[in-house]
Amino acid sequence: MHSYKMMTQDELRTLQRELQAQYDDLKRMGLKLDMSRGKPAADQLALSMPMLDLVTSRDICLSEGGVDCRNYGELLGIPEMRKLFAELFGVRPEEVMVGSTSSLTLMFDAVARAMKNGVYGGSKPWGEQGTIKFLCPVPGYDRHFAITQHFGIEMVNIPMDDNGPDMDLVEELVASDASIKGIWCVPRFSNPEGTVYSDEVVCRFARLQPKADDFRIFWDNAYFVHTLADDAPELLNLMAEAEKAGTQDRVFLFSSTSKVTFPGGGISVLIMSEANMEHELKAITIQSMGGDKVNQLRHARFLKNAEGVRAHMARQADKLRPKFALVEEMLERELGGLDIAWWTHPKGGYFVGFHAMPGCAKRIYQLCKEAGVALTPAGATYPYGNDPEDSHIRLAPTYPPIDELRGALEVLCVCTRLAAVEKLLAD
Amino acid sequence: MHSYKMMTQDELRTLQRELQAQYDDLKRMGLKLDMSRGKPAADQLALSMPMLDLVTSRDICLSEGGVDCRNYGELLGIPEMRKLFAELFGVRPEEVMVGSTSSLTLMFDAVARAMKNGVYGGSKPWGEQGTIKFLCPVPGYDRHFAITQHFGIEMVNIPMDDNGPDMDLVEELVASDASIKGIWCVPRFSNPEGTVYSDEVVCRFARLQPKADDFRIFWDNAYFVHTLADDAPELLNLMAEAEKAGTQDRVFLFSSTSKVTFPGGGISVLIMSEANMEHELKAITIQSMGGDKVNQLRHARFLKNAEGVRAHMARQADKLRPKFALVEEMLERELGGLDIAWWTHPKGGYFVGFHAMPGCAKRIYQLCKEAGVALTPAGATYPYGNDPEDSHIRLAPTYPPIDELRGALEVLCVCTRLAAVEKLLAD
Repeated sequence: MHSYKMMTQDELRTLQRELQAQYDDLKRMGLKLDMSRGKPAADQLALSMPMLDLVTSRDICLSEGGVDCRNYGELLGIPEMRKLFAELFGVRPEEVMVGSTSSLTLMFDAVARAMKNGVYGGSKPWGEQGTIKFLCPVPGYDRHFAITQHFGIEMVNIPMDDNGPDMDLVEELVASDASIKGIWCVPRFSNPEGTVYSDEVVCRFARLQPKADDFRIFWDNAYFVHTLADDAPELLNLMAEAEKAGTQDRVFLFSSTSKVTFPGGGISVLIMSEANMEHELKAITIQSMGGDKVNQLRHARFLKNAEGVRAHMARQADKLRPKFALVEEMLERELGGLDIAWWTHPKGGYFVGFHAMPGCAKRIYQLCKEAGVALTPAGATYPYGNDPEDSHIRLAPTYPPIDELRGALEVLCVCTRLAAVEKLLAD
Repeated sequence: MHSYKMMTQDELRTLQRELQAQYDDLKRMGLKLDMSRGKPAADQLALSMPMLDLVTSRDICLSEGGVDCRNYGELLGIPEMRKLFAELFGVRPEEVMVGSTSSLTLMFDAVARAMKNGVYGGSKPWGEQGTIKFLCPVPGYDRHFAITQHFGIEMVNIPMDDNGPDMDLVEELVASDASIKGIWCVPRFSNPEGTVYSDEVVCRFARLQPKADDFRIFWDNAYFVHTLADDAPELLNLMAEAEKAGTQDRVFLFSSTSKVTFPGGGISVLIMSEANMEHELKAITIQSMGGDKVNQLRHARFLKNAEGVRAHMARQADKLRPKFALVEEMLERELGGLDIAWWTHPKGGYFVGFHAMPGCAKRIYQLCKEAGVALTPAGATYPYGNDPEDSHIRLAPTYPPIDELRGALEVLCVCTRLAAVEKLLAD
């Protein structure tokens, strides 16, 4: 195959007819395939089923501290769950607040509190400072952007490369603009590119010198242990680096077991310095009775320790690896060398970042949709749903069974080629 | 026994010496008893243990609609849980949003959304209208007051009688003052008095004519099915009455299974009109991934339907009745006829409202504390912790085993008598 960009108009027109015919055939098949959401597949969930047998009626439901997990108490979580998260993230149990099922809620609430009450060390609530801004490494996670948009926080795109966000730009912006109050980061196997922030990037985050005294790094380490390859890069411990630099109050670290055990039925966590903890708890004690301790106990017994989590995730990786391999194989086979798309090769996480020829993403999304293949909407990975290049599509290969995934990828590839040809002919 | 108020100074002084000696003896016992919190006792929790066997690894985790309860989806809850709550509260499943474990969080978040976004039909967010107010029937629930105080909402005390809040006053205030945006109600077995709002009171709530176009009734029906006596009064269905009056958008109805199954491990619910639902969901979809559907499935299988819930609660009532009977018996025996205290005789719920001689509640709380008996702090049942009469103490007899409860009540009675004598001597 050779680059579409080298083709003559005539060649392109011939190609368009061929592709259109292929596409029409696909459309007639009445497919209904979904590659839109980062959901674990049923075979992954099955791996966590034994957890459901670990707290039963024949059991005592006491946590390590002797607290009855069935009753009120332990706002911050049971000791064994706090210890487990502490071990996983290399922090102290005192810095761990176990939440309900969803880290999204923890993030929303953290922004809500900062808006209303301000953060530790800040002189005013964010909400009383006029226009404020968040830096948004792009492409990124649409749910993050939805939160900042909901609170009227202006979003500033920050380009990403294989090492993480463009730190020269981040440093320059936060140092010069006190209205920048935060940054969204998914530092390991980023959503959607699968990027792991390099050690240098993490260190530069720890040593940031923001003009704002109330700046926070929203470190959403959602895929902290979700590796697919043995040689997947490790992530440097931001909390440890921040402590060395004396900037530990600048970090809110979020995660959950949503893609370790059950999405929506897992355990979320917010990790922060003790000064932040004390400050945030003033409002949290008014809002919350704490998470579900019975479910915490179930999780603690099932996952046991960091080693247990890693072993469990290795079993999930076995289920996921063929799907990611298929994405790579099919994209390479169908699109390689055509010069109309490139994509990421993640070693973990839930997504592949797919970059079509600029100006084609919306068209591809629409073509796929009409052929019965659901993708994450084009633009969703950018603030305000606006991908300035109209190029990026997030591929989520984990949920469909492998045959459905193959079908969806076939459609995607035909649509990508067709959209590219249309674009080249129109230009 | 005869009224302390008829005693001479000399008689009071002699009595004070006797009571002080009794009190000192109690103090020397080094007691450690707790009658401070509305928590179910271990024998109540035991009744829900079979629930833990209803979702196990041998199970399929599909909800009625075929949704996998272990995965993302169903933001509003699984169909069977929505139906169950709909049946229990006499509403439509479409009006039911199942939350996480805690209705406190649902209430906090509902106020937070109203402050930031406003409510359906309102012209402006509550937070952009200067000083706003909530009516607070007193004595009431300290956690409600903490929420309103947190958001800077001014609280106005509304006296309660055996029928509920003083509705003449409520009607007059809401009709004349547009800054009044809400009212906190615990309409059945109110916390702490155990009052059940009369049919007339409920109807008057349904027909309120507030000046504010964005007024909401926060109907915290926490003890909706928590009866102790067969002749406990029923509560009229506010949502049904409000629909008749066309005021259904004015109600936010909250509840949970915290004291049906496991506190902190149960299921919360927010019930609201479909117009309210649509409005509130705009923010909720940004904040939440939905509640824990595995736990919802467990609850739906265990509780089955409204009849199942009632049967389960009847078994809990068997455990609780002796404790409430003991409170009544001991207070009557030790304090009856002395004219220094009165208390409520609830037919359900978790509390007894104890009214000491005005000016004595704080002293009683302190005396009890020094003798090793923890009570809910005096004043806690009023906004800002300020009981203008310094008279009310909330008794929470459910959690301690019956012997501990007896000990705690003994101390309470001696302290109440001692404080009354001190007061009468000082006046």
